[in-house]
Amino acid sequence: MASANVPDIVVGRLPIYLRALNFLLEEGREITASQELADKLGISSAQIRKDLSHFGEFGKQGTGYEIKYLGEQLRRILKVDRGWDVALVGAGDLGHAIAHYGSFDWNGFHIVAVFDSDPRKIGAKMGRFQILDSESIPTVIRDMGIHIAIIAVPADSAQQVADVLVEAGIRAILNYAPITLNVSPEVQVQVQYIDPVVYLQRMTYYL
Amino acid sequence: MASANVPDIVVGRLPIYLRALNFLLEEGREITASQELADKLGISSAQIRKDLSHFGEFGKQGTGYEIKYLGEQLRRILKVDRGWDVALVGAGDLGHAIAHYGSFDWNGFHIVAVFDSDPRKIGAKMGRFQILDSESIPTVIRDMGIHIAIIAVPADSAQQVADVLVEAGIRAILNYAPITLNVSPEVQVQVQYIDPVVYLQRMTYYL
Repeated sequence: MASANVPDIVVGRLPIYLRALNFLLEEGREITASQELADKLGISSAQIRKDLSHFGEFGKQGTGYEIKYLGEQLRRILKVDRGWDVALVGAGDLGHAIAHYGSFDWNGFHIVAVFDSDPRKIGAKMGRFQILDSESIPTVIRDMGIHIAIIAVPADSAQQVADVLVEAGIRAILNYAPITLNVSPEVQVQVQYIDPVVYLQRMTYYL
Repeated sequence: MASANVPDIVVGRLPIYLRALNFLLEEGREITASQELADKLGISSAQIRKDLSHFGEFGKQGTGYEIKYLGEQLRRILKVDRGWDVALVGAGDLGHAIAHYGSFDWNGFHIVAVFDSDPRKIGAKMGRFQILDSESIPTVIRDMGIHIAIIAVPADSAQQVADVLVEAGIRAILNYAPITLNVSPEVQVQVQYIDPVVYLQRMTYYL
């Protein structure tokens, strides 16, 4: 069902639709409409219908979308109808917060290895994790067959960490370090950035 | 220049353009084109030109955009050509990471007060901050004239914290707790969510 013709910007909106559907499900709701999603998300209902139509026919004219069914379909399309192992690099404040963020596990993203290069941290416990030496990234990632990594190291070492991760076979990086990563276009690696400043700036516009 | 007619989705893209311009500036670049921004951001060049045209004429046909000038204009439009005081509620792992995240200060968002309700934390130092009692949120926020707050408390207390913040005069909330906040539409409060799961799900589509 994943089509090469679907624009990336459309793919980027699917998790937002899925999150909204999850919230509605939690409220005990069964049916929604593109207009309701539009009102919640600030995206036009026409856009939502168009985005979803890339992947099939999910609602009936006049009756709206069945929330549980559409959620299942979106999970399947996004390949999150299964669990994913995740490596975390960086066991500082941010890494600690990420390792204990329950929403990852709840959504099927299971952190299975935590790395740091600080000799004082290597071997120490961080919650249920024993911190591994960053030197072991290539072997651990390959042996465990991990494809997703989260970078939570300072900006000045993030690029080097990314290079090692990609070389080891990582194909998706969630980067918390405030720099853009250079990843060779020859390897097909997805990179996304968590940048809270972008969200603050979006709000100050209205203040 | 802030027009009520500009769709929120367009406003939401401006910080992303600004971040891309900042990265180009750091690389020592002076001129860019909508096509280059499009390639970097995965947004069509036509969309970028249309988004920017809501706010004025920033580039000349054939010569592209002057990066520094366009960045200054976007900062002015987004009202981040000035500093903003920010209150942080929650001094756990995540609050600690947020309080020490250099990118906030660097972008003009200055955390000036940190609150927690845990008696073991109140009065303690967290970096350069002394943790204040959440009970004092209304007075401190009003006395300091703070309009922006970051919520980094567990999901089950986030709504109550949000209610107190809005009542105290907060007009923009960045919410890290994994729940949707209910905010009365009568008060004009902006709410944005930091949800790393959304970014991971966007990448698994391609794996």
